[in-house]
Amino acid sequence: MKPLSPTDQIFLWLEKRQQPMHVGGLQIFSFPEDAPGDYVARLAEQLRTDTEVTTPFDQRLDTRLAQPVWVHDKHLDLEHHFRFEALPTPGRIRELLAFISAEHSHLMDRERPLWEFHLIEGLGERQFGVYIKVHHSLMDGISAMRMTQRMLSTDPARRNMPPIWDLSVRPGHKGDSSGSSLWQSIGRLLGESGKQLGTVPVVARELLRTINTARKDPAYNSVFHAPRSILNQKITGSRRFAAQSYCLKRIKAVCQAYGTTVNDVVTAMCASALRTYLMNLDALPEKPLIAMVPVSLRKYARTAGDKADDNQGEGNQVGVILANLYTDESHAGTRLRKIHQGIQEAKDRYAHMTPEEIVNYTALTLAPAAFNFLTGLAPKWQTFNVVISNVPGPKETCYWNGARLEGIYPVSIAMDRMALNMTLTSYNDQVAFGLIGCRRTLPSLQRMLDYLEEGLLELEQDALS
Amino acid sequence: MKPLSPTDQIFLWLEKRQQPMHVGGLQIFSFPEDAPGDYVARLAEQLRTDTEVTTPFDQRLDTRLAQPVWVHDKHLDLEHHFRFEALPTPGRIRELLAFISAEHSHLMDRERPLWEFHLIEGLGERQFGVYIKVHHSLMDGISAMRMTQRMLSTDPARRNMPPIWDLSVRPGHKGDSSGSSLWQSIGRLLGESGKQLGTVPVVARELLRTINTARKDPAYNSVFHAPRSILNQKITGSRRFAAQSYCLKRIKAVCQAYGTTVNDVVTAMCASALRTYLMNLDALPEKPLIAMVPVSLRKYARTAGDKADDNQGEGNQVGVILANLYTDESHAGTRLRKIHQGIQEAKDRYAHMTPEEIVNYTALTLAPAAFNFLTGLAPKWQTFNVVISNVPGPKETCYWNGARLEGIYPVSIAMDRMALNMTLTSYNDQVAFGLIGCRRTLPSLQRMLDYLEEGLLELEQDALS
Repeated sequence: MKPLSPTDQIFLWLEKRQQPMHVGGLQIFSFPEDAPGDYVARLAEQLRTDTEVTTPFDQRLDTRLAQPVWVHDKHLDLEHHFRFEALPTPGRIRELLAFISAEHSHLMDRERPLWEFHLIEGLGERQFGVYIKVHHSLMDGISAMRMTQRMLSTDPARRNMPPIWDLSVRPGHKGDSSGSSLWQSIGRLLGESGKQLGTVPVVARELLRTINTARKDPAYNSVFHAPRSILNQKITGSRRFAAQSYCLKRIKAVCQAYGTTVNDVVTAMCASALRTYLMNLDALPEKPLIAMVPVSLRKYARTAGDKADDNQGEGNQVGVILANLYTDESHAGTRLRKIHQGIQEAKDRYAHMTPEEIVNYTALTLAPAAFNFLTGLAPKWQTFNVVISNVPGPKETCYWNGARLEGIYPVSIAMDRMALNMTLTSYNDQVAFGLIGCRRTLPSLQRMLDYLEEGLLELEQDALS
Repeated sequence: MKPLSPTDQIFLWLEKRQQPMHVGGLQIFSFPEDAPGDYVARLAEQLRTDTEVTTPFDQRLDTRLAQPVWVHDKHLDLEHHFRFEALPTPGRIRELLAFISAEHSHLMDRERPLWEFHLIEGLGERQFGVYIKVHHSLMDGISAMRMTQRMLSTDPARRNMPPIWDLSVRPGHKGDSSGSSLWQSIGRLLGESGKQLGTVPVVARELLRTINTARKDPAYNSVFHAPRSILNQKITGSRRFAAQSYCLKRIKAVCQAYGTTVNDVVTAMCASALRTYLMNLDALPEKPLIAMVPVSLRKYARTAGDKADDNQGEGNQVGVILANLYTDESHAGTRLRKIHQGIQEAKDRYAHMTPEEIVNYTALTLAPAAFNFLTGLAPKWQTFNVVISNVPGPKETCYWNGARLEGIYPVSIAMDRMALNMTLTSYNDQVAFGLIGCRRTLPSLQRMLDYLEEGLLELEQDALS
């Protein structure tokens, strides 16, 4: 029995039918060369027999003294968690994305351990998909991605590799999201780290107090500048997932031409795609959109050190940068330069801040959004319009029981007033974009994939001219 | 814009993650003889182009003056409602049932018209499935079954038959559940028919008053006799669906041997299956289980006539019989005879009652369950343990665009304290059983299919000896 951390409780509070609070990851594999045609069905048979379920995958929610706790599930039913499924004809990426869109829209069953592992056959000629879904109260996106990577190997000859639910827990690995989540900053701000947060009204009142204090402080005034947009409407319960990989070489060539980082270029690609998408809906705000970009604070806060949050030396304390996307700027090259400069300034600001100041700044940036999420009220102050998140992925070609990993795509969370989440991950020589959005608020979201490509093309052309 | 009837509102109140309030129907079709291998994919293509959506399939929930209403959905997204899906290898009935179990566990998206049409390929050699899911607030099980039948034809040569969402509404057909639902009786009892019911606490208080009055009345005292059982625990959010057809000829032979009705025999099969299932779990109550069996009141209340509920002469006013299942009786033949006698007595009682008395009796029978459902409290008085419902199905072989309907199975609702629902339907020369239950409260529910068969076998053997 283990009490839920205050931040993990927030994800339970925030969850409702139209706002499921689980994260996911989609992996696409190729059959091993010598694999028979029914390879995936055989793999499913084999996985079904793997009934050893390790922590945290054996933990379900329960309540003790009115507080949520994790307990071992004595009646774990693997058939509920491991699902063998198939794509309909013709089994293209399009059918796969439609499948994930529907699955990611479904709430999880809170009476069971909050994870699902979907093995998906019928993709292309000799490919298959794996979609892993984990509730954010059990694991955040970064932890889930790490766990997924631990399932893989760079050795194509390895066999008998267990599925994610049967991985031995690494000694000292916490296996949950405490400390790694942005929401932790909110808990900190409220001075409640490590304690139970209490009730939603109490937390909301504290957030409001914080926001009002900050708005009177000229030093923080600059964070309240995001425009209103259709991205910041209430959402409905169905999702659209769109995903695509872009060649890292192309992105790096653009970096070199402009003297920017990879992160600047992918942010500019997102900016360009958002601009085109919103212009086509006649919904581009006059003022530029602001993106909330989580960044690792390792290099900034390293010397000061914060052991409690330094999870096994992997340094996952997270701060945020509010990146102006300059969606009012029509020239792609100029837009990238401005974005680069804005992000650079934000980083420089962090370099001059104490760890405590960083935590406060981060929490403050998130506070208005957290207040809106918790109370359901429309934003009076908007600090950002969209989340653009970068989750580290594997650098080398990976395999699972000889099947080569062709692509890995994050599937994140859309929320009320934050209808779109753009999460990227790098793998091998690619950058993979996973977009999740409310299907109703943001029609035909899949078009953004073309707009991302167009955004990259424009930058390439501008660099040449 | 049309306000929801009081009864339809109840289904919205009752819905929660662990208790979705939609009903479903599964149909299994064979390919037309001349159909190509990719028949189902072509059918999916064709259905996708059928974007004419007729009432009630174009209606979504909205709120006017704090009351729920149906309004036309201006942004209807057919891709959300029509889903083309596939079974994994080896595509047996087992995979189909697992698929339906998972799908039926998912809450619907309340911001959209509350229906889904799933076309399922990959079943057997040349078969496919259709699973239709409709929220109970839009349509009850009987209306849904009728609507499904209107999609079909007895003519194998007919083509260009539209899907369910593009059926023209029959003049005078109400297309909703008003009047046909058991819950209507509750509304009536509260004297609120046609008006808004108000709030949950008000309704619960009224129900409690009714129950307490009835318990003091010796005439009604006999209804409070159901034992406690594991069927009447709180449920969780995941379902198991099990379905099978049994030969009507065999059932009729048993009827003849014992001088009973078909309904008596299928009720006895259910009794036998429940007895074996609970005995194997060491959970059979000493006192016999009581089933709530909805019956059409046409023949009883006909002369008195109740035009308001006589839906286009189809006579769907419903009363309930509390059928003692005699699960304490070990001899199958004796059990059937006792069940037959009990049901006969209940019917005789109705024959001597005025329509008003029938409505009161029905409502009273349901009141304790309704009270438990609405308040979430554990039952203090249990009037029944399980629902065994019989929905009329097509009598002749049916076709949809030349594809022969091989079987049709109802998928109903499991509720807190009512973890199992057994719904039957007849089709052609078969009786189809559809069992839906909470997967956690009732482990390995699919075994009941074998126990139903054993129950029938026992009766056949007893009749011979």
